[in-house]
Amino acid sequence: MNAPPPSFLHAARSGDPIAAIDTPALVVDLDAMERNLASMAAFATRHGLRLRPHAKTHKCAAIAQRQIALGAVGVCVQKVSEAAALADAGVSDLYVSNEVIDPVKLARVAELVRRGRRISIAVDSAMGVDRLAAALQAARGGASATLVDVFVEIDVGQGRCGVRPGAAGDLARHVGSLGDASGMRFAGLQAYHGHAQHLRSAREREGAIGDAAAAVRSALAALDEVDVPCPLVTGAGTGSFAIEAASGVWGELQCGSYVFMDRDYADNAPQPGAPRFEHALFVKTQVVSRGDDHAVVDAGHKSHAIDSGLPVVWGRDDLGFANGGDEHGIVRRAHDGVELPELGATLWLVPGHCDPTVNLHDVMIGVRGGLASGVVETLLRVDARGCVR
Amino acid sequence: MNAPPPSFLHAARSGDPIAAIDTPALVVDLDAMERNLASMAAFATRHGLRLRPHAKTHKCAAIAQRQIALGAVGVCVQKVSEAAALADAGVSDLYVSNEVIDPVKLARVAELVRRGRRISIAVDSAMGVDRLAAALQAARGGASATLVDVFVEIDVGQGRCGVRPGAAGDLARHVGSLGDASGMRFAGLQAYHGHAQHLRSAREREGAIGDAAAAVRSALAALDEVDVPCPLVTGAGTGSFAIEAASGVWGELQCGSYVFMDRDYADNAPQPGAPRFEHALFVKTQVVSRGDDHAVVDAGHKSHAIDSGLPVVWGRDDLGFANGGDEHGIVRRAHDGVELPELGATLWLVPGHCDPTVNLHDVMIGVRGGLASGVVETLLRVDARGCVR
Repeated sequence: MNAPPPSFLHAARSGDPIAAIDTPALVVDLDAMERNLASMAAFATRHGLRLRPHAKTHKCAAIAQRQIALGAVGVCVQKVSEAAALADAGVSDLYVSNEVIDPVKLARVAELVRRGRRISIAVDSAMGVDRLAAALQAARGGASATLVDVFVEIDVGQGRCGVRPGAAGDLARHVGSLGDASGMRFAGLQAYHGHAQHLRSAREREGAIGDAAAAVRSALAALDEVDVPCPLVTGAGTGSFAIEAASGVWGELQCGSYVFMDRDYADNAPQPGAPRFEHALFVKTQVVSRGDDHAVVDAGHKSHAIDSGLPVVWGRDDLGFANGGDEHGIVRRAHDGVELPELGATLWLVPGHCDPTVNLHDVMIGVRGGLASGVVETLLRVDARGCVR
Repeated sequence: MNAPPPSFLHAARSGDPIAAIDTPALVVDLDAMERNLASMAAFATRHGLRLRPHAKTHKCAAIAQRQIALGAVGVCVQKVSEAAALADAGVSDLYVSNEVIDPVKLARVAELVRRGRRISIAVDSAMGVDRLAAALQAARGGASATLVDVFVEIDVGQGRCGVRPGAAGDLARHVGSLGDASGMRFAGLQAYHGHAQHLRSAREREGAIGDAAAAVRSALAALDEVDVPCPLVTGAGTGSFAIEAASGVWGELQCGSYVFMDRDYADNAPQPGAPRFEHALFVKTQVVSRGDDHAVVDAGHKSHAIDSGLPVVWGRDDLGFANGGDEHGIVRRAHDGVELPELGATLWLVPGHCDPTVNLHDVMIGVRGGLASGVVETLLRVDARGCVR
């Protein structure tokens, strides 16, 4: 790895024992991650569905390439700068599953296309479509190029981006009306329900995804009315993909967090028919201060994101974790009689939410052989860290 | 600036108009920041107090140097890797106001000392003291070196790090017992009350800091009992420094957030006698999707930290901001009749908490002449971004 950023100084090197990893550090249990990757790939194959995992979770070209090697058609990203960073690191098929309005960013999309990447993108406005067409035309001049696949996003219940299902026909027809000369083509519907991922009971998630499926069917009817065929419906996440798969409506799954799992997803009741994923992402932390009734560790919310709640201490149900601010965590006995960890002791945290946790770190330390006695095998660079544009 | 990280691609260049800054981007209003810097420097001078601002807020050597040029004695950091990153970028006087137990990190402290930086550090255990002494001795061999100033941290009410006030004498005496040959000397007390910073009423903060002052007096009495003089008491933050200053107990102020201010600190009622600070840190964001009753902007909690609550939309009391996830914010009318911003419109967010927000970005865009019509003057590199070790 060239020119590691300063934050990485001395964290670990390949071949180090796990005990030598400096803290706090983001550590990937490669054995667990690879089982997660294989389980999801097998699930998609079994259901005859395309898998396009969301790279917003790991932002790491090396992991994207492993997903693709296991059969994924490419990856999703949320931002154009993420696509550019992963393209620079060798990933060749990228779907920006999000709206882009800024002409500067759309020019970067066009530049990626010109460089031979296969790029697709979501839209929910005529302005977005027209500006994309303008950028593509400006970039390619008279030459023909691979068409950009454009997915019309519909709001399936989250109330964030996306047109009303009934409006999908008009926007798809607008894309088609520009013709292949526009450099793009209508490729299907983007239908993702983010809120549904975190509903705790399988029944609640089934209800929400059932509503989402109804919204997709409305959008399909609207497309049908204007005689626009729908090649693909893409969506789904780690909390609900088995429900989308069972619906028969979706053709492509975008799950991201299954790679690592996090405390929040593990708090969900299982979905019927879904494989179970293992925690594969941990923050290694050390006790730096001890009181009579608490220990203080060196990982706070500059080391792990707390937007979906606090981490838990891995393998220590007898310890509670409290927020200690940006750089500290506070560990207390869950009940009387528990021995608190001593000064200098190592603890492992399972982050509340994996995606924004990864985004805090420049490098993930990939270990093999378990957290207790394994060895550092590889350093996984977070290629798209901080790529919010 | 050498080798900008990928996240920075195309955000802005010096001389660009503000309208050209790509979104989302972290933008510093240099005029407002400089007024904040001057106000705090004048306050410290007026009260005859040392100012050692906390660089955990900005992690930026260029801002640290401005603070030092205005009279600060140096800066605080929370982590050894932060100290190393700022030392590499030219800052020469750094206080690690936090406990360090790991021998690898303490060896890095010793290396900074060997390279001629003036380093001080907090301790709250004999183990921490002994390991620091061992690291300093291993690094300097027989040669004499500048002594490392060691501050004994006392718990003044936060319940995180620090010894009980009554135990300060024993730990200070332990530091002194090792003699100058240890490479360190007892320099005083670290007494910071983090929770007190965010109590909303001045009266609540006066109560908490009054208790903290009583804890400091107990520690001073414990030092007196073992005949150890206390050269300095250091602590205080942006929410309470005027109260610490009025107490006559503290000799050095460690405020950090005053540089930028954030929504959370602005929610505090003012402290009597304190200057008012202005918002100087903003996230520039763009509307990328519009519904009938909401607009979606391209900044979520990968662009601004939400541990202390959500951002507000600057200058738009008529808009409410709701969490839209990692990469989106949702803007709604605060009351009927408000015109929602159109697709492509720019909004400016005041982050809920400045420190972890800065830590998400590699670069801050420094602008001059106001947010409406100013110009990009400089790019402020976040030198210690991600330096959690």
